[in-house]
Amino acid sequence: MEPPQVRFAELLQLLREVHDLEAAAELLEWDQETYMPEQGAEARGRQLATLRKVAHERFTGDRAGHLLDSLSAAFDDPRSFEASLVRASRRDFDRAVRLPAALVAEMARVSARARVAWRAAREQDNFARFAPHLRQIVQLSIRKAEALGYASCRYDALLDEYEPEMTTERVTVVFEALRGELVPFVRELTAADAPRDDFLREVYPTSAQWDFGIDVLRDIGYDFRSGRQDVSAHPFSTSFSIKDVRITTRLNERYLPSALFGSLHEAGHALYEQGIDPALEGTPLASGTSLGMHESQSRLWENQVGRSRAFWRHYYSRLQARFDSQLGHVSREAFYRAINRVSPSLIRVEADEVTYNLHIMLRFELELALIEERITVEELPEAWNAAMVNYLGIRPESNAQGVLQDIHWALGAFGYFPTYALGNLMAAQLYARAKEVMPDLDEAVARGCFSPLLQWLRAHVHTHGRKMTAEEILESATGAGLSARPWLQDAKDKFGALYGIR
Amino acid sequence: MEPPQVRFAELLQLLREVHDLEAAAELLEWDQETYMPEQGAEARGRQLATLRKVAHERFTGDRAGHLLDSLSAAFDDPRSFEASLVRASRRDFDRAVRLPAALVAEMARVSARARVAWRAAREQDNFARFAPHLRQIVQLSIRKAEALGYASCRYDALLDEYEPEMTTERVTVVFEALRGELVPFVRELTAADAPRDDFLREVYPTSAQWDFGIDVLRDIGYDFRSGRQDVSAHPFSTSFSIKDVRITTRLNERYLPSALFGSLHEAGHALYEQGIDPALEGTPLASGTSLGMHESQSRLWENQVGRSRAFWRHYYSRLQARFDSQLGHVSREAFYRAINRVSPSLIRVEADEVTYNLHIMLRFELELALIEERITVEELPEAWNAAMVNYLGIRPESNAQGVLQDIHWALGAFGYFPTYALGNLMAAQLYARAKEVMPDLDEAVARGCFSPLLQWLRAHVHTHGRKMTAEEILESATGAGLSARPWLQDAKDKFGALYGIR
Repeated sequence: MEPPQVRFAELLQLLREVHDLEAAAELLEWDQETYMPEQGAEARGRQLATLRKVAHERFTGDRAGHLLDSLSAAFDDPRSFEASLVRASRRDFDRAVRLPAALVAEMARVSARARVAWRAAREQDNFARFAPHLRQIVQLSIRKAEALGYASCRYDALLDEYEPEMTTERVTVVFEALRGELVPFVRELTAADAPRDDFLREVYPTSAQWDFGIDVLRDIGYDFRSGRQDVSAHPFSTSFSIKDVRITTRLNERYLPSALFGSLHEAGHALYEQGIDPALEGTPLASGTSLGMHESQSRLWENQVGRSRAFWRHYYSRLQARFDSQLGHVSREAFYRAINRVSPSLIRVEADEVTYNLHIMLRFELELALIEERITVEELPEAWNAAMVNYLGIRPESNAQGVLQDIHWALGAFGYFPTYALGNLMAAQLYARAKEVMPDLDEAVARGCFSPLLQWLRAHVHTHGRKMTAEEILESATGAGLSARPWLQDAKDKFGALYGIR
Repeated sequence: MEPPQVRFAELLQLLREVHDLEAAAELLEWDQETYMPEQGAEARGRQLATLRKVAHERFTGDRAGHLLDSLSAAFDDPRSFEASLVRASRRDFDRAVRLPAALVAEMARVSARARVAWRAAREQDNFARFAPHLRQIVQLSIRKAEALGYASCRYDALLDEYEPEMTTERVTVVFEALRGELVPFVRELTAADAPRDDFLREVYPTSAQWDFGIDVLRDIGYDFRSGRQDVSAHPFSTSFSIKDVRITTRLNERYLPSALFGSLHEAGHALYEQGIDPALEGTPLASGTSLGMHESQSRLWENQVGRSRAFWRHYYSRLQARFDSQLGHVSREAFYRAINRVSPSLIRVEADEVTYNLHIMLRFELELALIEERITVEELPEAWNAAMVNYLGIRPESNAQGVLQDIHWALGAFGYFPTYALGNLMAAQLYARAKEVMPDLDEAVARGCFSPLLQWLRAHVHTHGRKMTAEEILESATGAGLSARPWLQDAKDKFGALYGIR
């Protein structure tokens, strides 16, 4: 057998090619959402399917498996590039080969139909129309979990796709801690007087919104030589290399926060990808380590930074200069209160910073129950509505505003939802630690100086790519694993003060 | 052995996948020229190389060869989809497998360095800096021709890449007929008074240029649901499917014709690709049949249509309305004469409709002599300058304005140049025939009605894709093969009248 370095070089070459094919697919998807002419969709779908198939075939071939087997114990230092690459690829390889091609194909077929049915069902507020599809998807997801394998809990196998090494048990414990304090706290906030925010719904010309957003993106450190912002129906961030990480935004003339906080959110994702160690470029290590950690970066810039008093000490006069007729008469404090208004609502994507996690917990509990077959698809709408009443004190008047609002289940993405809340918690943990080690962080933000924060995140989170798991990053950056405590503390401090209930 | 239809289905599937991979590569290149952030270039180069390599490997594998062998005589009707696909793929396959991978790789390496050297040599007007690279490229091109094989003439093997089934002999004969009349005609035109065109160099705001161009594109039938226009440094057209054919343009505030005729030119290419029979979608038959035929379509819209009196009868008042201060005082006839000004010049890409072909013939003769080793790289600059004097009566004062002006040789693209002139000739042949069968074509154009022309081109040229060769299309559309006669006749009629020398 050839020496490990030779076998490793071959593995690396193989993985780079797979990575290149996947990066090409990402660009095709970016184009689909931004510039593709409408008639291009059919061929684009075929091209994407081919790219994904060819990448999958190359990755799951005998050669990759053989190389990974032979290199499993070849490198001692677990933090080395070589050991990390073998470990991460082994993980991806095992997941890829354990899923039978027939199951993957069936999921794609069923989900394509389910998406159409979901859209119609939501429009017509007709859950029965979606139910048979959802039943199929639940069954296929269970088969998927069984094929992937798990130690103790079936849902682990699904969660692990989005949040590697995270377990259902751990999420349950953390969410329980969160819920115990959050539900009564939201009740208190709801009873208090909400700040006015009607001025956020004046007419805000989109070109001025765009320009202000670009200024902010540049200030916080998003590198336009290695990225760009475009417009799309649903904002997203995507990456084709560490040096080409793009974001999109959506401009709403009648709602100022939409583009502003949307851009900050996506830029948070993009800063993560732009900050990965260039030595990992073109390999499977060159991406965020989990969806939760990714979401922590987007939320941190959107909420911990973008919704802070310090941030607006720097930016509010600049915002007023662009929107004098809309905001000239609104004080900075009134603006700050408006963008931090808490109000239980039915729709997750419109939820505020405080209630958002409850929307997620509800979904996590329901999808876990579906996968564990403790609840049927038929019982789902009522279970949803009951949980909404329990958690937020409001009851959806329709399934369209309830169980039918999200596309995730139609996509077969069971295990995805919890990562949103995990991201919120991680963001608070990381930000609390950053403030500890940089006591003048607020002052820096208030001066429009974001590089201390960015450099800290680069060093402790971004640079590692997939060399460390989310928990390992949390442990090494904050000294503790996942916890709801910092988020709860922040929420109570900030919103308790804001609503005068502490 | 399985029945032909089963083997054909397998071949088709394989070819579709290769086509999808190549379409993805085309999109990556489009993005590179339009929206890619500057730092994205390095990874993009690697991704493109991977896509091209994977596509090449899949296409040249044993399976494709075996299927093509077994299907070579399976379909009787040569115009059928099946027979055409097998024929075109056989051709592509043979060319692909005859080129040793080592030669392809060496050409890529040498050409990458040659491009850098060429750019520096042109900037510094230092031919000696480029010469050693060009020598290597000539030698590699000769090795390429020998590897590809040919019946009688080495250059045939290179020409055939861009203009399938065309021969050096045939090009030589046609170009000789052209040169015999064109050189003295240009001399006559040069001696006559040239129309003024200074008003084309006023300040023309680029956004108004853009808007006018979009109107024209829409009018002539370019389908924006299946395409779009963007800005790039060098205009081009590209296609990812029959339903996604894009063009780019370049806006020059100080030269009105640049964007206008550039857009018409690229739209001509794009109309060809948009007009291919949808039944050929996703296969190697779904593209223009040769570079010459492709150029005929771009030139036809740019010159035969766009530089005609009829076209400006419809558009001139519209153009004046957008550029009143620049053109309000310029008569339609003066404008028409200005955009048809003939003037021998040193740079091919700035040449007018009449002298352009001489620039091409010069390059064809020189590159043929290089490949046949009748001339050395050292002798090239002087041979270039002497030919310029012979053909156009002017002598470059520097190699930067002479032999160093084009990138093609640095790319290793020997055999490409003649297709530009072949395109001009084919355009004239096709347009002459269209006018014969539609005597009121000029009147339609003057009313801004382009669909009769487009429909005729669709039916006789576009729809076939690669099912017919360029000569077959010419024969079937015009009743004759390639000829310089119609182009010469048109040039003499139009410019003779314009310059009052007939």
